[in-house]
Amino acid sequence: MAERGARVASGGSRARTLPEIVTTPDELRRLRLEWTRSGRQVGLVPTMGALHPGHLSLVALAQRECSTVVVSIFINPLQFGEGEDYLAYPRQLESDLALLAERGVQVCYCPTVDGLYPDGFATKVVVKAGGDLWEAARRPGHFAGVATVVAKLFASTGPCRAYFGEKDVQQVAVVRRLALDLDLGVEVVMGPTIRDRDGLALSSRNQLLSAAGRESARCLSRALTKAGEQFRAGVVRGVDLTRAAASVIEQEPGVELHYAGVVDPSDFQPVEVASADSRVLVSAQLEGVHLIDTSRLGSPLQLER
Amino acid sequence: MAERGARVASGGSRARTLPEIVTTPDELRRLRLEWTRSGRQVGLVPTMGALHPGHLSLVALAQRECSTVVVSIFINPLQFGEGEDYLAYPRQLESDLALLAERGVQVCYCPTVDGLYPDGFATKVVVKAGGDLWEAARRPGHFAGVATVVAKLFASTGPCRAYFGEKDVQQVAVVRRLALDLDLGVEVVMGPTIRDRDGLALSSRNQLLSAAGRESARCLSRALTKAGEQFRAGVVRGVDLTRAAASVIEQEPGVELHYAGVVDPSDFQPVEVASADSRVLVSAQLEGVHLIDTSRLGSPLQLER
Repeated sequence: MAERGARVASGGSRARTLPEIVTTPDELRRLRLEWTRSGRQVGLVPTMGALHPGHLSLVALAQRECSTVVVSIFINPLQFGEGEDYLAYPRQLESDLALLAERGVQVCYCPTVDGLYPDGFATKVVVKAGGDLWEAARRPGHFAGVATVVAKLFASTGPCRAYFGEKDVQQVAVVRRLALDLDLGVEVVMGPTIRDRDGLALSSRNQLLSAAGRESARCLSRALTKAGEQFRAGVVRGVDLTRAAASVIEQEPGVELHYAGVVDPSDFQPVEVASADSRVLVSAQLEGVHLIDTSRLGSPLQLER
Repeated sequence: MAERGARVASGGSRARTLPEIVTTPDELRRLRLEWTRSGRQVGLVPTMGALHPGHLSLVALAQRECSTVVVSIFINPLQFGEGEDYLAYPRQLESDLALLAERGVQVCYCPTVDGLYPDGFATKVVVKAGGDLWEAARRPGHFAGVATVVAKLFASTGPCRAYFGEKDVQQVAVVRRLALDLDLGVEVVMGPTIRDRDGLALSSRNQLLSAAGRESARCLSRALTKAGEQFRAGVVRGVDLTRAAASVIEQEPGVELHYAGVVDPSDFQPVEVASADSRVLVSAQLEGVHLIDTSRLGSPLQLER
């Protein structure tokens, strides 16, 4: 464990106690026993670190709803495919901990890869939810990797609630189904996507973009806005709205469209006729970085920063 | 829940309070919270009912080691393949509860199939342990069905220890790996196989045999004994010991050998040269009933009844 009581200066003004750092499931289980015995309700915010205001909004939500908040930071190799950006994924534990300290987070679970996947590891959790399209089709094995690590995080943390961001809406569907199906007793809460003022959905991967790439990446949120505008103007055919979103991304130089779709939020299947509740999904790659975004068709994007 | 305080007369002499019957994961989770808060250590004995002295020996073991014992009774459809005996599997909840009452078991978890696998259920837990031979090869999907239900039972019960019989030694390997891999914090305890005086390993499926079938079924334990005798007489080649065991079963009229093997207990792969620690595995079918048995090569069978 990290030295308790270590203090950190951050942002020049506030100094807060660093979170207690837990690195093994057994340690976490011992803490959990204490929490249960003292009647605490645990909220878990699973992250891969490189924390941004999207993560911190989930932390704030968890703090409002739970008496103890655990933030996990673990870049899960199982959910990265071959040729994906596991090695490039941003790692910045020290500044992450400072951010969590500022927010008064008491416990941070930072297991190692060898700790969670020791020699002989042989288990895979497969959840056939969230459909077989979009991220499921684009990244084979990705959601099994997510479900496996989330099952582990839930088992060792024992949360009442766990918090995930809406940007990864298909992942949320997988995790909700997992929690129900394995009787984990965890309520999966979806927090809103946090965006920069210009619309770009916050993502740790945005860090991997050049300044020009950062500009180009705005085409994803513009595609969502375009579909919403068309819908409010009376276009309701799924294929037409999809085309409208896709063309925004396709017109952006240097950006490769992976997919665009207008789907039923219950099963992620493309809709023939869209409603305000339909969900728009887009994904694109630029400068080797895989980005995704989503919105409810009938709601304008919330630019919250 | 069953009426608490209901009393049952069993065996003519002893009358004990029936176990509390819990039928949903949520109910069990509430009880579990009480147990944790009052410092109880929970032991779980997962069964498919039709309890026999093998199960009851696991209950007794759990009672010695844990302050609260939960016995689950659930015939898990996921672990039965097509054409297997899911429908024929013996069901006798009333007498099972009486047996558990006699032993002072306080809680019995009896979920329904619809309760554990509601519409939309979409999760599968796959554990690549215990090798890909023997039961794994004979019953494709069987161990995934076992792992999935055991993950659910562990999640809702939250036991410190769970008890399984040695007869299903390959299953024990799967469940041990599952408990480790998903950070479930459960110690998986393997209790010895209980046998009738004539050697037959107790199994709920023995009930499905005629009197003549019951006699013939003894060939499985005789095959194990034969391999052990040969080993003590100096035979050490895996293939020779396997042949000795297999021939005992093949010579029994009306019995179809499924497999015989002499394996390394760590990976269930056939051994070239056997040691006392090698494990003999046999399986056969008679009167449509699938039976398995196993022993440590260097140990004589324990006839404990």
